[in-house]
Amino acid sequence: MERADIVIIGGSAAGATAAVSCKRRNPGKSITVIRQEEQVSIPCGIPYIFGTLGSPQKNLIPDTLLTSNGVQIVISAAEKIDRKRKLVHTAKGEQISYDRLILATGSSPVVLPIPGIEKENVFIVKKEVGYLQKMLEEVNKSSDIVIIGGGFIGAEFADECKKNRQANVTIIEKLPHCLQLAFDDELCIEAEKVLKDRGIKIVGNDTVAAILGDNKVKSVRLTGSEIKADVVIVSTGVSPNTELAARAGLRVDDMTGGIVVDRYQRVEGDADILACGDCAMKVSYYNGKPLKTWLASIATNEARLAASNVFVTQYAGLGVVGVFSTQIGELAIAAAGLTERQALAEGYDIVVGQAKAPSKHPGGMPGAVPTSVKLIFSKNNGVMLGGEASGSISVGELINVISACIQHNMTAYQVSLFQMGTHPALCASPIAYQTVNAAEEAVMKLR
Amino acid sequence: MERADIVIIGGSAAGATAAVSCKRRNPGKSITVIRQEEQVSIPCGIPYIFGTLGSPQKNLIPDTLLTSNGVQIVISAAEKIDRKRKLVHTAKGEQISYDRLILATGSSPVVLPIPGIEKENVFIVKKEVGYLQKMLEEVNKSSDIVIIGGGFIGAEFADECKKNRQANVTIIEKLPHCLQLAFDDELCIEAEKVLKDRGIKIVGNDTVAAILGDNKVKSVRLTGSEIKADVVIVSTGVSPNTELAARAGLRVDDMTGGIVVDRYQRVEGDADILACGDCAMKVSYYNGKPLKTWLASIATNEARLAASNVFVTQYAGLGVVGVFSTQIGELAIAAAGLTERQALAEGYDIVVGQAKAPSKHPGGMPGAVPTSVKLIFSKNNGVMLGGEASGSISVGELINVISACIQHNMTAYQVSLFQMGTHPALCASPIAYQTVNAAEEAVMKLR
Repeated sequence: MERADIVIIGGSAAGATAAVSCKRRNPGKSITVIRQEEQVSIPCGIPYIFGTLGSPQKNLIPDTLLTSNGVQIVISAAEKIDRKRKLVHTAKGEQISYDRLILATGSSPVVLPIPGIEKENVFIVKKEVGYLQKMLEEVNKSSDIVIIGGGFIGAEFADECKKNRQANVTIIEKLPHCLQLAFDDELCIEAEKVLKDRGIKIVGNDTVAAILGDNKVKSVRLTGSEIKADVVIVSTGVSPNTELAARAGLRVDDMTGGIVVDRYQRVEGDADILACGDCAMKVSYYNGKPLKTWLASIATNEARLAASNVFVTQYAGLGVVGVFSTQIGELAIAAAGLTERQALAEGYDIVVGQAKAPSKHPGGMPGAVPTSVKLIFSKNNGVMLGGEASGSISVGELINVISACIQHNMTAYQVSLFQMGTHPALCASPIAYQTVNAAEEAVMKLR
Repeated sequence: MERADIVIIGGSAAGATAAVSCKRRNPGKSITVIRQEEQVSIPCGIPYIFGTLGSPQKNLIPDTLLTSNGVQIVISAAEKIDRKRKLVHTAKGEQISYDRLILATGSSPVVLPIPGIEKENVFIVKKEVGYLQKMLEEVNKSSDIVIIGGGFIGAEFADECKKNRQANVTIIEKLPHCLQLAFDDELCIEAEKVLKDRGIKIVGNDTVAAILGDNKVKSVRLTGSEIKADVVIVSTGVSPNTELAARAGLRVDDMTGGIVVDRYQRVEGDADILACGDCAMKVSYYNGKPLKTWLASIATNEARLAASNVFVTQYAGLGVVGVFSTQIGELAIAAAGLTERQALAEGYDIVVGQAKAPSKHPGGMPGAVPTSVKLIFSKNNGVMLGGEASGSISVGELINVISACIQHNMTAYQVSLFQMGTHPALCASPIAYQTVNAAEEAVMKLR
């Protein structure tokens, strides 16, 4: 029987980060990561295997991240947690005892009960390297790709499937727009325009009634039409992996499907077990309500929280702000906190401020692209509730500026006086800096 | 005699922003900007005229920014402020009365008393379009360019002078390194390496004893050597333009040379006059001490502060954090708040956290470059004092994330649990996200 001070189950974003952060914060403690996969895919990098990267082997979290930090890796499925004896049993028959256990078992793609979904060449987006390799080979041979679900994974897959490849690509989305759960309509439409300009067909407001073909998929039947398909990619969301936890008697939240944890990432009813990442229940920064949001960045944040609270209660998480970003073609779009639609649905009285300016200044600097920011504030106290941005690569960090402002409950007034740096080759002009100007516009509406 | 509710003297970053922000915050008020220049150069864009942009005409703040907001422009030098009658007299004989006056008279380049500095083809970096056009023509004809002063303007000029041009370019810097007032040594050395790789010669720890030649410059004499030069660019800092204010009896600060203002940007002793931008005295965010820092981004922040306080006292500025960024070759470097050197000089006990990761993830994504973050925290309370970053274009907004954390006095612990978004094409991996990992490293040293 082996033993480690901290045992972590799962080796993806949450598990790997928890291991590194635990080691940093508790350098004297022994840490073992138990995971099923020989090799671990970078979860958010998976779509890029199919175009930009070209191979699942180019999208791995390297084991050296763990081993160079002195973390042990056990490759085996964790089968059972014996909470009384503080032991994890693996499929290979190992028993590993722990002082503290961190569950980071992740999530699995949702498999909708669509007739025919079991057919050959219908792929759900699993994180397994072998599966992804097979999927890539079929995508490379395909001429008609249908993607079910136009969220981040679906939109990114569509974009990547068009790179270095002649196949027809169609997205089927049951909502009116792709990416609608993350962005307000104007950004969805902007992204859809780029997808369409790249020759991708988008069918909104429709669902798949059946996947047709003999053994292998031949087409997809929608409510009123049929689309030829030799490959189908199902990207209709994920659900938390909680079987192991449930078998150990830990409570799973009905609404989100996540393992119930407190603000310290501690599971309910067992002081020695924490959970983080997609498998753990999340609550909103705004109102503490359970939240169905799964992101690698949230997973790593929770992993760091778990690591900091693993032996001593130190820091309660703020709840999830939620910061999303993606790139479609050359367009980068991002959102932090509540969209306008979400804020209204939550019952907020809101004001919106918007500003647009070139990403460099003067606007004639090579590579400058229009970059816009939209900020949403509570009408009653002026506090920022969320923000969205579109433009080019810098939007990835621009949205983190907005996230920082949200995490400090800054008001429109304060954001309008935010002290930023601006350089001609790197940012909008200080006169036109979008975040500040959007806030200033909101200030006027708040009076 | 004309009249405006708000008269602003100066039409560059501070003046233009004050005008737009005043109009937004007080839509019913009439606003007049008095300025000398027919056309206004974008101040921080000036070096880019000499390479990337190719013409002063491509580096202008457009008048439509003001006119489309209903702001009047009077092109004339303001000669006298009659504070008793609340009147501004211009060089063209106009008299414009005001209810409130905002001084945004900017700064002028320092002219060091170097023998020979008056010679032909010795240029100080004035913001005047005609002067810059003449300077550009001479730079275009030159084969040996010497730049005196290796601050931002000097380093950027050197880089730009090498674009599409064969001239020898030499920077003379009296400190050991270029950019040393803004960055710690490691970033200065990184930037100098890029400059040197581009064929630029850097002479550190040396000063110019004389500029030689007949009418026209032929060479520059240093303490122990002489360098051939047919063009000399003097970029040895700026000093505030305060003559007009001083003539009107307003107090000018001895140490910084700026018009004395309070945290609301109101000048001392006259409730109807405010000042902002390079002409106004600044104080440090950290300790309230006067600060010799002049940046367009600070100018626009002060302009918005002035605009918000012009009729009603609303909001006291926090003092200057100071956010610097630049691009040298393809390398972007940036700093916010105190550098390690500055923090030590201020007497802080500090800890430093550092992290480096590719700008995209996996690191094999095309265009990914190593991006590093260094954060400085107070050892006594863990509060972040400053940060520096190097990498590519996203560093322009990454440093603003750091600035947001500084403006909220976040501790290393809090920054290590910062909620950011990360996308493969836009940011470092969430596991490796530099700002969070640098903070986590510091957390360990703080215990």
